[in-house]
Amino acid sequence: MLIANREEIAVRIIQACADLDIDAIAVYSDADEDAKHVRMADEAYHIGGSKAKDSYLDQDALIEAARAADADAIHPGYGFLAENESFAANVEDSEFAWIGPPSDVMVDFGEKTKARKIMESADVPIVPGTTDPVTSADEVEAFAEEHGYPVAIKADGGGGGRGLKIVYESSQIDAKLQEAIREGDAYFDNPTVYLEKFLESPRHIEVQIIGDDHGNVRHLGERDCSIQRRQQKLLEESPSPVLNDDTRAELCEAACRGAAAADYVNAGTVEFLYEGGEFYFIEVNARIQVEHAVTEELTGIDLVKWQLRVAAGEELSFTQDEVDPRGAAMEFRINAEDPDNDFTPLPGTLSTYEPPRGIGVRVDDGVDEGDSIAPFYDSMFAKLIVTGQDRDEVLARSKRALDETTIEGVPTTIPFHRRLLEDDGFVSNEHTTKYVERELLDE
Amino acid sequence: MLIANREEIAVRIIQACADLDIDAIAVYSDADEDAKHVRMADEAYHIGGSKAKDSYLDQDALIEAARAADADAIHPGYGFLAENESFAANVEDSEFAWIGPPSDVMVDFGEKTKARKIMESADVPIVPGTTDPVTSADEVEAFAEEHGYPVAIKADGGGGGRGLKIVYESSQIDAKLQEAIREGDAYFDNPTVYLEKFLESPRHIEVQIIGDDHGNVRHLGERDCSIQRRQQKLLEESPSPVLNDDTRAELCEAACRGAAAADYVNAGTVEFLYEGGEFYFIEVNARIQVEHAVTEELTGIDLVKWQLRVAAGEELSFTQDEVDPRGAAMEFRINAEDPDNDFTPLPGTLSTYEPPRGIGVRVDDGVDEGDSIAPFYDSMFAKLIVTGQDRDEVLARSKRALDETTIEGVPTTIPFHRRLLEDDGFVSNEHTTKYVERELLDE
Repeated sequence: MLIANREEIAVRIIQACADLDIDAIAVYSDADEDAKHVRMADEAYHIGGSKAKDSYLDQDALIEAARAADADAIHPGYGFLAENESFAANVEDSEFAWIGPPSDVMVDFGEKTKARKIMESADVPIVPGTTDPVTSADEVEAFAEEHGYPVAIKADGGGGGRGLKIVYESSQIDAKLQEAIREGDAYFDNPTVYLEKFLESPRHIEVQIIGDDHGNVRHLGERDCSIQRRQQKLLEESPSPVLNDDTRAELCEAACRGAAAADYVNAGTVEFLYEGGEFYFIEVNARIQVEHAVTEELTGIDLVKWQLRVAAGEELSFTQDEVDPRGAAMEFRINAEDPDNDFTPLPGTLSTYEPPRGIGVRVDDGVDEGDSIAPFYDSMFAKLIVTGQDRDEVLARSKRALDETTIEGVPTTIPFHRRLLEDDGFVSNEHTTKYVERELLDE
Repeated sequence: MLIANREEIAVRIIQACADLDIDAIAVYSDADEDAKHVRMADEAYHIGGSKAKDSYLDQDALIEAARAADADAIHPGYGFLAENESFAANVEDSEFAWIGPPSDVMVDFGEKTKARKIMESADVPIVPGTTDPVTSADEVEAFAEEHGYPVAIKADGGGGGRGLKIVYESSQIDAKLQEAIREGDAYFDNPTVYLEKFLESPRHIEVQIIGDDHGNVRHLGERDCSIQRRQQKLLEESPSPVLNDDTRAELCEAACRGAAAADYVNAGTVEFLYEGGEFYFIEVNARIQVEHAVTEELTGIDLVKWQLRVAAGEELSFTQDEVDPRGAAMEFRINAEDPDNDFTPLPGTLSTYEPPRGIGVRVDDGVDEGDSIAPFYDSMFAKLIVTGQDRDEVLARSKRALDETTIEGVPTTIPFHRRLLEDDGFVSNEHTTKYVERELLDE
């Protein structure tokens, strides 16, 4: 199997291949010639220059490498081309199997207005908003009168905060609408925008799902990813400490319904905002996510292995009742960033890298000691996943695990995580998606 | 809390202390001045020379260190003084709490004939044998006539194969009886011996138990430790792949009954042999064991933390029904020994030490890269514990995890474990406690 990705997720997929006795084929850019995923793979192919667009985003180079390696399948990981519908379609049209949701499912969920329609039809609560494109200031005005300010203007193809504009009063409408249209066009080649009521202090809660070719869709519980900075997740946990069992069951069932309505196959995440006791669908991530490991720890189910098995036509072997999440887990993203300096990515060489060990500690990473963090890509190089019987045990173990971690050569997000574990608002579970910026960083 | 031990188990206890926000006090011999457990502890006290008898076996030095540190409790770990009744009694008589079974429980189970009587009274099957001491060849002869050869002559205070002699025919009785008496006297200061029918190809299966001061004794499932060489365990797994659910339940309940009959408090292991569909009690290990981590992975229950909580008078918070082992796990002991050369311990410096990471992988160890393995103590310096949904997943992940482990500077048992994972007899679960010697090592 060819892995069209690098670092942490490439290593994770190589491990899943090893566990299934499948040969793993890596690809690499100039910068990654000696990377861990290259060292660990059974074979590795050079695909181009260091910049992502010259290598990990180069569809032709990736397909060519798959041909050279005589691969049977391509796994896109997350990021890069993982949610690129045309790449998925190209792979589907080729001799290779695509390890991910079918391209038509990706199309359905790639356009936010379409996704909202699917969810609405499956009786999944969505954030009050328009399911049709919006083009004029008058429409925004009318929506605001009905639902109140603030209003979010969102690019249809958007994600990760790009193409998202918040309008707090009538006078801002014109300018923000034009900005959103411009950004949607520039970043996603799609000038369509739509409206949503903007939730000011929600929790971000998402549901892991997986479907097979035999019509089964299961959920594997939820993750709470409310610790974010500028829409970037920094820490994820499960179970969400704000949900009661009834709401959790409703949420997870809604996610399954919505995914089933689109004939979802392979792994994916249905994301919701949760505020005032209500949850609202926001989007589907039609791929494996960074934080999938949290779910693996609670359920004991290896999601990446199941991605491969489902793609090979296998039927999910577990019923919904057999999915029985146990305990609690938290994932800390370890990025080569300076949390004291606006989280600026600072690449460099890991002169010391001693990850923690012991009970309740899992480390997924894409580096070994002595490796370099390249400046061309995402700054996350490791994930610390801590598991325990309940949130308190996880918090205590996490503190210990972070204390046992020694990293020199690059600044990391670890000091930020340490601060978080000492922060009353986070520990007592009062945070929302805005909490980090407002309370911890004074932004 | 003072930890009267070193290396892996000392580190494990320090981690449990950190998780409970308890200060951990280490002790060290000359050889261990810079050891990992010393580096990790909140404080550390020098207790004597490098030889065990001058430090980790020196009861006075340990109690003195506890006084100097103003400790509240002493944890003996495993090995050294962990099962020394007089040390336990001395600690009980001191101002310090003893983190382990009460000394009178240790006395009950320390003498094998007494232990057998307790188990018999609790209706726990024991290996056919004598519960009274045996002194004459005639008694051995009579026993052999009733139960058949081979017959095991066992020292009452024995353990780990010392003071154990096997008689295959009448002519050997005199000599073997005298040898067993001599070894019992020399090693354990106890010339009493007793007889047991010798099981030639049993499995070694043990049950983890824990009791509290409130009369509760729970089992946490079983472990299969049949991969041994000369009575030394090399690999442990759970669940035991030879037990069906009914026998497993019977075995675990029997272990609880036996422990409860002796008013067992704190963690312990009830060991059995299993042959021909029947299980037979052999002994109780009145301490935490090396392989406790296997049980922690399946149950999610932190045994070392519970040792501390039970010793502080806390009641076990889980009912028997709430103990719900999930999946499968295997522990690989990583010893500084040369498996190709009679497992000779070869101390040295760990010039490279890169333990594996990723899904299903836990590493408990007492070393970091650059540390030395001292020649004075046990050669085990790390444990790799691999967890999965079932034995097949564990076997595959274990292979991968061992492949990802890089250790240079000392020979280790890793090549042996690799061979084991490729061995049909082990993989298809046909092994017994004699399997390693007979089939894998041609001994």
